[in-house]
Amino acid sequence: VTEEAPTRWNGWGDARRTFDFHGRADALWAFLEEALAHPARATPAEELARLSLPELRLGDGELDALRGLVGAEHVRVDAAARAAHALGRSYRDLLRLRAGEPGRAVPDAVLRPGDHDGVQAILGWAHEREVAVVPFGSGSSVVGGVEALAGPHRAAVSVDLRRLSRLLDFDPISRVATFEAGVEGPALEAALESRGHLLGHHPQSFEHSTLGGWIAARGAGQKSNRYGTMAERLVGARLATPVGEWIIEPHPHSAAGPDLTQVIAGSEGALGVITEATVSVHALPERRRFAAFLFRDFPAGAAAVRTLVQAELPLTTVRLSDADETYFYGALRKVLRPGPDRTGPVLRTLGLRRPCALLLVLEGEGAAIDAAYGRTLYLGTRAGGLFVGTGPARSWHAGRFDSPYLRDPMMDQGFGVDTLETATRWSNVEALHARVREAIEGAFTARGERVLVLAHVSHAYPDGASLYFTFVFGRDREDPEGQWRAAKDAASDAIRAGGGTISHHHGVGLDHRRWMDEEVGDVGLRALRGLKAAVDPKGILNPGKLLG
Amino acid sequence: VTEEAPTRWNGWGDARRTFDFHGRADALWAFLEEALAHPARATPAEELARLSLPELRLGDGELDALRGLVGAEHVRVDAAARAAHALGRSYRDLLRLRAGEPGRAVPDAVLRPGDHDGVQAILGWAHEREVAVVPFGSGSSVVGGVEALAGPHRAAVSVDLRRLSRLLDFDPISRVATFEAGVEGPALEAALESRGHLLGHHPQSFEHSTLGGWIAARGAGQKSNRYGTMAERLVGARLATPVGEWIIEPHPHSAAGPDLTQVIAGSEGALGVITEATVSVHALPERRRFAAFLFRDFPAGAAAVRTLVQAELPLTTVRLSDADETYFYGALRKVLRPGPDRTGPVLRTLGLRRPCALLLVLEGEGAAIDAAYGRTLYLGTRAGGLFVGTGPARSWHAGRFDSPYLRDPMMDQGFGVDTLETATRWSNVEALHARVREAIEGAFTARGERVLVLAHVSHAYPDGASLYFTFVFGRDREDPEGQWRAAKDAASDAIRAGGGTISHHHGVGLDHRRWMDEEVGDVGLRALRGLKAAVDPKGILNPGKLLG
Repeated sequence: VTEEAPTRWNGWGDARRTFDFHGRADALWAFLEEALAHPARATPAEELARLSLPELRLGDGELDALRGLVGAEHVRVDAAARAAHALGRSYRDLLRLRAGEPGRAVPDAVLRPGDHDGVQAILGWAHEREVAVVPFGSGSSVVGGVEALAGPHRAAVSVDLRRLSRLLDFDPISRVATFEAGVEGPALEAALESRGHLLGHHPQSFEHSTLGGWIAARGAGQKSNRYGTMAERLVGARLATPVGEWIIEPHPHSAAGPDLTQVIAGSEGALGVITEATVSVHALPERRRFAAFLFRDFPAGAAAVRTLVQAELPLTTVRLSDADETYFYGALRKVLRPGPDRTGPVLRTLGLRRPCALLLVLEGEGAAIDAAYGRTLYLGTRAGGLFVGTGPARSWHAGRFDSPYLRDPMMDQGFGVDTLETATRWSNVEALHARVREAIEGAFTARGERVLVLAHVSHAYPDGASLYFTFVFGRDREDPEGQWRAAKDAASDAIRAGGGTISHHHGVGLDHRRWMDEEVGDVGLRALRGLKAAVDPKGILNPGKLLG
Repeated sequence: VTEEAPTRWNGWGDARRTFDFHGRADALWAFLEEALAHPARATPAEELARLSLPELRLGDGELDALRGLVGAEHVRVDAAARAAHALGRSYRDLLRLRAGEPGRAVPDAVLRPGDHDGVQAILGWAHEREVAVVPFGSGSSVVGGVEALAGPHRAAVSVDLRRLSRLLDFDPISRVATFEAGVEGPALEAALESRGHLLGHHPQSFEHSTLGGWIAARGAGQKSNRYGTMAERLVGARLATPVGEWIIEPHPHSAAGPDLTQVIAGSEGALGVITEATVSVHALPERRRFAAFLFRDFPAGAAAVRTLVQAELPLTTVRLSDADETYFYGALRKVLRPGPDRTGPVLRTLGLRRPCALLLVLEGEGAAIDAAYGRTLYLGTRAGGLFVGTGPARSWHAGRFDSPYLRDPMMDQGFGVDTLETATRWSNVEALHARVREAIEGAFTARGERVLVLAHVSHAYPDGASLYFTFVFGRDREDPEGQWRAAKDAASDAIRAGGGTISHHHGVGLDHRRWMDEEVGDVGLRALRGLKAAVDPKGILNPGKLLG
């Protein structure tokens, strides 16, 4: 997928694709109106043509110099390119883009180098001229990670890396592959699949995000339980930095000093531009199996997840929704595909008044999966789960990249939705879940507004789990950013005070900096800033993100 | 184990314990004399009383200040303490200690703080006075990692951390434990075992090395195949640094910037003194099973190991010896426990003229291990292995901490032995094995000397494996360090040129710096030096190691 493919400049994904309402969008809006006590109202986004963009801060001579470095057709200063590279895809970003007010975060030029040397040339030029460089994969950051700020510099260029999309090396014996870092999810998996392998890193943004972006943000995919987080899959890397090329050699394990792959993972474009990455891959699974359970409450479900994960079963996905999320998705399904309620009475009879759904996916070698599937059903049932077949997990799996397409029409109707996430150790999962939930609810209640707060465990480890929160609300038309900020701040404070990390897999960007500072602490920040100053002495790389 | 326990100041381990020769030491020396064409000759070590130690560079007032910080009884300036903390336990270190010539690497004082605050107080004092601080766990470094150099500073103190040995927190739900970092292997596992858990990090130095040392050197134990390397087990840490306390919070996974645990793992005392660490633990295994196979050659064995590891079986140990190592240990066994050769004729009949032995250990939950054991036997046999029962793996497991005790008597007899290691991807394992072997042989051949070069795969990953080399030779009485240096340099050059890492799990210290510099590269080194300068502005921490 290249920039030429029709992607939305102010919304999610492929411009030719929309959410499938099954012809019942109006019923959905009515459902939300009632749940939120908030009337739907058409609030369309501004047209691109009406966007007011700031003046270019680069002169013709400078643009000519850039054209000389990467080719004239790969230097763009038109409104479409600049707008599409101004911000990421957070709720706050969409508020700004839809209002036609991207603010100062608009790059002066969008550069599309074709290889590592092109990126290195841009950095050399920008370092010399003290122009900010914002690395850009597919722009799916939801924490302000690609906001094209110039910081203290006089201009900013966005470096779109999607032309760097080649598979450079594939070693089936060692199960490692080296890609250029601008490759997007579908192209990466297609290249591996044709060779009998997969990476298996499938974040919800999979179709519109890049390998380099996954690494830079320390991402985790929906199958991380088996295939690992992106940081765990990174074996080696090549970066362009203002002080030159940085190569981290790909060894299976090394004690030659600190593991710099784990500094690059999470570097968010502030320490260099990742141009190539070597990752470990898996053989394509022979078999995939699904299972779904209902639990009487969230603690019971969480205990089951812990048992399953600590049993080291080849589960790719372990997704436990809390009672409100289970209810909400069930209600949504009924709104979009109405029919008689056959399961409700049965569940009530069984005493599952507010059940929590656990969806499981297993993938791997055939005989191993068959054995593990039996063990999964046994352990899930023994932990108090009601096995409800394969359907719920199967349909979640089939539609898992669709739900981002629901946000834009919701915003068109005057609603708002955002997500945030954290992780903590198992002994703290229930307490943190309750605390963050209450914080988000409290922020809206204080404004006299309603909110739906839904949560699930999306990634589980032997020592703990992530918690992923979705909150749905009626958008404040006067001060939508203030409304969002109040909830975000309350949730972030609750995460920090409650012993969670400020981000399990979204990253820091602009939005989490304050809490990251507390989490990493004075000496840790000093260490990272010392490292950054050494490789980016003028601070031109992604100003304002991560380390400020 | 505290410093008061009788450990050898110039050799390995517990002074009350010796290698069990089964009364046949003379037969062993005769075997080595013949194999190496080198006559055994008594070359005893110098007595401690004859050691010439440099003058103290700290004044009485300074020593009094230190006594005020950690208690008078925990500041030692006597010869025994200074000698025991001068060097590590590499072959080169032993050459120097046994000759009574530790050189300048003798600390002016040995300090034994009792907790984090004591360490922090020492660092504050040393930073102020510009005195070098050498963190010391149990001193088992084999790469010069604890050599008590003052560097550009006027004096050096060794900070022995073994009083920091408490279990501070244990969370059985989340399976994480927080220890003070000076705890040694046996005490750490005893604390966990009484609570039904284990760490499972069992390097050969296990009985005389500390948690903090394992982390600082990015160590890997003999059961790393299942329980992971030390870096993989590190969840959080607390350090004392010249600029203050550094806490890395223990989250299951975080995207709040780079993973600083992976900077601390491999920091070798140059970035701070690790005082506490949170590690993930496992439930005690219900069952342990052993298996041994013989393969026709090293490539066939390596392919089998790769298959077993990529099949994700719960193997704790995967140890494949090359033909010479298999032969050597077989011959050693016959020398120490002579008897009729019943297996040799059988193997020759089967065409296994120079077999390679593969030892496997499986540990875990009972039913899972039973199932995995069957699969292990199937895959091992299908890969061409001859199953030779459980005995070889069982006896290796029982005696795996004994072999370090053989080095001292070998040195007493005028022989030498050293080890070195690397790791590389599977597709390069055979080539690197041959290259390093030839380099070591070549170094001795060039001197007209014989050498036995033995190698095994000791740690295996889906993408590659480590290679561990042992070389045995007749010691040059005139220039033993030059003899060793020639072999070490040749092997290190071969590792670098052959695509391996300069260290899989021993670390960098002094001995690997030149090759680490090449491996990490200019920008990587610049990054690490920037980080170090930020937390250790005067460079007092472990001068000369890691980053120079």
